Amino acid sequence: MEWFLRPLSPFRVVLHNIFIQEPRTGSGMLDHFGFNTVKTFNQRYLVADKYWKKNGGSILFYTGNEGDIIWFCNNTGFMWDVAEELKAMLVFAEHRYYGESLPFGDNSFKDSRHLNFLTSEQALADFAELIKHLKRTIPGAENQPVIAIGGSYGGMLAAWFRMKYPHMAVGALAASAPIWQFEDLVPCGVFMKIVTTDFRKSGPHCSESIRRSWDAINRLSNTGSGLQWLTGALHLCSPLTSQDIQHLKDWISETWVNLAMVDYPYASNFLQPLPAWPIKVVCQYLKNPNVSDSLLLQNIFQALNVYYNYSGQVKCLNISETATSSLGTLGWSYQACTEVVMPFCTNGVDDMFEPHSWNLKELSDECFEQWGVRPRPSWITTMYGGKNISSHTNIVFSNGELDPWSGGGVTKDITDTLVAVTISEGAHHLDLRCQECLRSHVCAVSPLPWKSDI
Amino acid sequence: MEWFLRPLSPFRVVLHNIFIQEPRTGSGMLDHFGFNTVKTFNQRYLVADKYWKKNGGSILFYTGNEGDIIWFCNNTGFMWDVAEELKAMLVFAEHRYYGESLPFGDNSFKDSRHLNFLTSEQALADFAELIKHLKRTIPGAENQPVIAIGGSYGGMLAAWFRMKYPHMAVGALAASAPIWQFEDLVPCGVFMKIVTTDFRKSGPHCSESIRRSWDAINRLSNTGSGLQWLTGALHLCSPLTSQDIQHLKDWISETWVNLAMVDYPYASNFLQPLPAWPIKVVCQYLKNPNVSDSLLLQNIFQALNVYYNYSGQVKCLNISETATSSLGTLGWSYQACTEVVMPFCTNGVDDMFEPHSWNLKELSDECFEQWGVRPRPSWITTMYGGKNISSHTNIVFSNGELDPWSGGGVTKDITDTLVAVTISEGAHHLDLRCQECLRSHVCAVSPLPWKSDI
Repeated sequence: MEWFLRPLSPFRVVLHNIFIQEPRTGSGMLDHFGFNTVKTFNQRYLVADKYWKKNGGSILFYTGNEGDIIWFCNNTGFMWDVAEELKAMLVFAEHRYYGESLPFGDNSFKDSRHLNFLTSEQALADFAELIKHLKRTIPGAENQPVIAIGGSYGGMLAAWFRMKYPHMAVGALAASAPIWQFEDLVPCGVFMKIVTTDFRKSGPHCSESIRRSWDAINRLSNTGSGLQWLTGALHLCSPLTSQDIQHLKDWISETWVNLAMVDYPYASNFLQPLPAWPIKVVCQYLKNPNVSDSLLLQNIFQALNVYYNYSGQVKCLNISETATSSLGTLGWSYQACTEVVMPFCTNGVDDMFEPHSWNLKELSDECFEQWGVRPRPSWITTMYGGKNISSHTNIVFSNGELDPWSGGGVTKDITDTLVAVTISEGAHHLDLRCQECLRSHVCAVSPLPWKSDI
Repeated sequence: MEWFLRPLSPFRVVLHNIFIQEPRTGSGMLDHFGFNTVKTFNQRYLVADKYWKKNGGSILFYTGNEGDIIWFCNNTGFMWDVAEELKAMLVFAEHRYYGESLPFGDNSFKDSRHLNFLTSEQALADFAELIKHLKRTIPGAENQPVIAIGGSYGGMLAAWFRMKYPHMAVGALAASAPIWQFEDLVPCGVFMKIVTTDFRKSGPHCSESIRRSWDAINRLSNTGSGLQWLTGALHLCSPLTSQDIQHLKDWISETWVNLAMVDYPYASNFLQPLPAWPIKVVCQYLKNPNVSDSLLLQNIFQALNVYYNYSGQVKCLNISETATSSLGTLGWSYQACTEVVMPFCTNGVDDMFEPHSWNLKELSDECFEQWGVRPRPSWITTMYGGKNISSHTNIVFSNGELDPWSGGGVTKDITDTLVAVTISEGAHHLDLRCQECLRSHVCAVSPLPWKSDI
């Protein structure tokens, strides 16, 4: 199973560009930690300075994660929300190997040799070099405090940046950053347990219905006619074969996971349009677990349909697509095969999923087959300290209590300056979104009229 | 000019091995920051546990620098001095690419491809992995506090290790660690100014005599007969040519630099045996700057002879040898060409040397010719924070006031827990030496009788 800290959705319609400056690229060293290559690459970053003041101002630095930086810019309204108060210059830095910051262009994901420079350490060093560059080249910026901000993997990067480069950032906001979802720092089952809780609390018997659905699928898929029936009942685009069943179940599981991540209190237009509190809507179809297999699966379809077809425009469901956009999946798959090794497991008791233990060997073999690399599951803990981080300062860890990633996050204060903020009834980095802040500030891509309103 | 943070001297006579355990090697990742290679290398380290207690004990971790770890072990009596009080296990970790920790054996220095993994960041990661390994494999070690200790470049590593891996080390003693001898953090002339002060204070007109010697050499070397005379007066092993003159002056300069580093208050047996306060002895020959060129150079010879021939056994002086042992010069030359770019300069006014400005371009071209790499002079500051390190904690920076490296060191308290200790009348990491501590604790190499007295 792959559960990425995935970006949620791009804004589809770019209407106007209020004041963000044209995307820039800075030439950065490809390898900060070796001197054999002098190759550089173009790192894209965005700067918005409408609210910035040279006197008493600050720099809010978004530590870009696994996707297109324009897309993150359009999903991080919080930056705009606080810009005026902090007289802040906003900087969004794209993570290497994502978006347009591809060191080897189309060959960036070709093999492990080209991917060798895709690590969190290199990305943090990119951020450090970029901050130095900005402070050197923008008059008035030199002595201003920098605050690192990011969500999800970007939140991990924000926290790690403050830990490793405290001379570069006075503090960090690490939103929904599961910095402890490694090794045995938290139980591997915590993630799916939270997903389950979200469903259990969103409607009577909801999680129980889902828990029972797996066996129902297994039974129905035992026969050819059952497979045919399932294909029809779930409105799938392609006929199911018995080889597809595990994939089908993974796809459904990922859908529930995604819903838990985006269970926001307002209607939102993500990859699919969704109502407010989408899990509550889903659970309206899953009130009765004690029905026949076929009725249960018809109900499951109704639930999936909320997610994949709220608009009513979709003709069939495609089990090779989940809620992820195509943003960054290749790069993230590599990172999950090297540094970012996050153990997940289910037992079917504390969670509503089929039991599945964490299998590092299996992951390692898959990684070797796909990328020619093997994961180093303890490296992140060695590098970034695991739970032993109390000597660091000035990091806010925010987590939504509904967010499954909160299970690997810092949800209790560690010290006076390493503080946890819990957003009750909040999903994945709800705090960074600030949907209303985004209405008047849209980060666009060329060939839209840049600087039109400056 | 190359002024290395060089090791001072090995103990020549290994009489007995009190309690150090057999050297061990641990298999470490060659590249901590990339996943394309899975190559490992053997890192050598020494463990001494005579004074170690499982209850209430600690681990003193020597962050090995540019040389053979046995040699550092035999020059760091301080570790033995405090072992009993701290119930400490002593660990001496060899730095990759030095001593016997050569990742590619004899090919380790072959070219920039083989040298690509020689960086301070990789070395710090080696230390982190080694500490994890020791804590995992030595019963009772797991929860003990680790203190990083090192001198010179090793002191920089100790400080940086605490900064970057505070979860691994509760504190550090960074002895004579010139962490600010980079970019323009300190004036490039400070190093040679301190050398000059040492000579000026060690005898009347001493530094002035040396200052005048350069022009005297220049004048004498203008003619063939002058060169011949100089060769004889300085008792050189090979006849001087006019092409050798700059090299001769560099060699003499390095001798004065080395004397400043080892100006210890007791007689010591380094590469050459030296009396206590060797500069005072040297300066007895340099009391009169206002003499003829030939008399001045005869006096310079007497001064050099203190350093190179205190034993009286040496027949002639060899200008291709200074006080350095051969330990680590190749590796250090590469490091000085990549990360460890330390600007030095002289002006002949504040110091007793010929004026020589800092020339990065020249260094870069020499580095490219020798190693195929070019220095990144600002990287160390980006990585380790330069002067902006006040958010870190628990580092003691010790400096001898006679030590020229103190000019690039931390000599004033930064915070309550980043403290400076100045050793009045102390030379290069005098505090770590503790000559008397070394008498009964000798780190030996096979085939001596290991564990003979345990």
